[in-house]
This record gives sequence, C-alpha cells and structure tokens, in this order.
Amino acid sequence: MAANKEDVKLLAMVESPFVGRVDIALNLKGIQYKYEVENLKNKSELLLKSNPVYKKVPVLVHNEKSISESLVILEYIDETWTQNPILPSDPYKRALARFWSKFIDDKVIDAARKALYSHDEKEREKGAEEIDEALHLLENELKDKFFGGEEIGIVDITAVIIAYWLPIIQEAFGEKLFTSDKFPKLYNWSQDFNNHPIVKEHLPPRETLMIYYKGHYERHIASK
Amino acid sequence: MAANKEDVKLLAMVESPFVGRVDIALNLKGIQYKYEVENLKNKSELLLKSNPVYKKVPVLVHNEKSISESLVILEYIDETWTQNPILPSDPYKRALARFWSKFIDDKVIDAARKALYSHDEKEREKGAEEIDEALHLLENELKDKFFGGEEIGIVDITAVIIAYWLPIIQEAFGEKLFTSDKFPKLYNWSQDFNNHPIVKEHLPPRETLMIYYKGHYERHIASK
Repeated sequence: MAANKEDVKLLAMVESPFVGRVDIALNLKGIQYKYEVENLKNKSELLLKSNPVYKKVPVLVHNEKSISESLVILEYIDETWTQNPILPSDPYKRALARFWSKFIDDKVIDAARKALYSHDEKEREKGAEEIDEALHLLENELKDKFFGGEEIGIVDITAVIIAYWLPIIQEAFGEKLFTSDKFPKLYNWSQDFNNHPIVKEHLPPRETLMIYYKGHYERHIASK
Repeated sequence: MAANKEDVKLLAMVESPFVGRVDIALNLKGIQYKYEVENLKNKSELLLKSNPVYKKVPVLVHNEKSISESLVILEYIDETWTQNPILPSDPYKRALARFWSKFIDDKVIDAARKALYSHDEKEREKGAEEIDEALHLLENELKDKFFGGEEIGIVDITAVIIAYWLPIIQEAFGEKLFTSDKFPKLYNWSQDFNNHPIVKEHLPPRETLMIYYKGHYERHIASK
C-alpha cells in the first residue's frame, strides 16, 4: 500500500454497500485512510457537519474537505489519485461507465428495495419483475471479465451491491432475485469480483451482513 | 458559433427540461448540431436503437455514438469540447458541482413531481414541504452570480428546470412553490440565468410550455 501523508477519513458503516464502494476504490488506489465507524443512532458532529444535506455515510473527508454521495466520491477519488484508474480515459467510454453506474443506482437498487421491503404483495412482484429486467440488461452488457474490461472499474465497484450484498440480502429475506441459472455471466462476474484479492480483503464478513439484514427482515416484513 | 465538421444530433422534445439542459450546454460550447424532434407516441428507430434502456430523450448522437441521461451527456460534452468549461477544473469543486447537480435530480425533481402530480393531498403537501426545504438548501448554496461563479456551470444548467420550467409549471397547476419572496437569491439567479444571451435564445417559448403543462394538469389533476 502506497504511503500518503494526506489526511483521509472515511465516515462509514460496515453494513452499507455504498460505503463498501468507497472502501474498495480507496484500496484499489492504495490510499491509506482512517475508517471511522458512525453510529447512525448517535451521529458524530463530523458527520453532521460534513454531510449536512443527507447526514448519511459514506462521507470522504480529505484534508478537511468533505465529499458525499458514493458515485461523486468515486469520481473524486479517481481524479485525485490517478493511479489504477477506475474510469476509462476515452470520453465516450467514460459516458457509458457513468450511464451504467447511474443505472445501478436508479434502477437496480430501487427495484430491489421494492421487491424486498414493500408491504404490498403486488408492489413486491412488480419490484421482482423490474430487478429481473435490470439484471438482464446488465447480463447483456457484460462483455469482458469485468465491466471495466480486464481490470475492475467504476461500474464493477458500483455493482458490489449486486455481487456481494444482494445474494446475502435475498437469503435473509427468503427471496431469489439474483441466481446463477438466470444470470450465468453476471454470476461468474460476481465470483471474480468478490474473489479479487483487494476486494476480498475489504468486504465485510458475510455473517455480519446476514445478521443485519435478517434484522431488517424481522422488522420490516415478518412482524407486519 | 464555431464550425465543427462532426456529426452531432440531439434527439429532443421541446417541452423537456432535460433536453433543455443539453441544448444550452451545446450552445454555450458553440457546437453546431441537428435538433431532431421526437414524437414520443411514435418513437424513431434512431431513438429506440440509441437509448434501448430508457427509450427517452435527450439522446446525444455524436459521430454515431449515442449517449443518454442528461447529466451524463453534460459531462461528455464538457470532456469532448473543452472550450467554455461547465465543470470546474479542481477535483473538489468538481465533486461539489456533481453533488448539487445530483441533488437537483434526486431531491428537487422528485419533490416537485409529488407536490404537483400526486392525487393524494397529504402526498402533495409532503412534496411541497420537501421542495421548500430543497430550494432553501440551494438558496443558501448560491454564493456568486451563478452556481458556477461568474459564468454558467453544470449546476446552473441542471437547474434550468428551476429557473425556467418550474415557474411555468407551477402556474399551470395553480401552485406557488418557487416564489421571489421565499427565495430572493434563487429568484435573482433565475432572472440572470434566463436572460443570459445564449440561454435566452435557446429556451422554448413560454406559451408552448404553458399549453403543454396545462394539458398535464387537466389530465393528471383536474379530471380526477
């Protein structure tokens, strides 16, 4: 890991896939940073001051300048530390990478929330159809080992929520949204991604997430 | 307007504020392009082929490569034609510009839709409160003539929906969400923005939008 004299802090919560994105990107870049766990029931002064709009993690604090919103942070990281680029250099390829990253945030996550957390059965069914369609689009988009080509790029990092979180969350909720038989290419990609040495080292323990999302299931679904 | 030999097309719909963003950015850059109006009830082959995921305008087609999603297109335009930059050069300032552009898309537009289009009175009230809060955050963020400083930047362009569209839409719906007494700085900014010579020349006629959004009001609200 490269040494850096700069002050870099990541305001974090282990269970958040959005924090996971930033964590992976910083480690792919070889940046040293402090991982500061926030208690969302008792948010730190630093969190409230550095993300007054959303008051959410992740926040990257770099030499006292704070940046919020995981996709915005990923672009900042790539522009600030230019080694191991996560965005392509060609403007058109950059546009495509941004398009698919945004697609994951706008479509996959929204559909997954609906499919898993809605109390209305019809809404849950609709969410399941939408995530199916969205994952098929991603399945068709995957041309190489990674969305970024031979190396991990911003779309792969954004999609950690599909590669690592979704299989655990769907198990906690007793659903099957993302399976190897329906999405064989995406499944192979998820294995390659999760087993990438740097990614693997920085993913939170499966058991930690399972307990957390089973708690979600109990509170949001089972008890209603 | 600078000459360019390249083939640039904007698949468009006059009434769309998202198209308006791209139109303004291309003109601020002095790019020559064809403005191709789509009929959304009978979409062109080119639209279906170039934006298969959303099948929506705007789409920028540059030398047969197509880019969708207005914020993604704005970044592409800035990286492809570097004159009159719309994003700052400093990575931190770029991050802030991306944060506020995304904020407008995620918060202001979502709240405005709820405040204007929801059939549930409580939802409409909630939307009105949310847009009030979001516009106050933008009011506080406005430090110079424009969000971009002395020149128009990506946040200003993204916010054309507030500067030009919102006053017309709220009038069509008989609502008062954005007013000069509640948001004096933002109101002054909107006047400066709308009257910028290049912006002014490329905004759609007020009357065209009024007819279109009164139609929305009749179909979505008045007839229910």
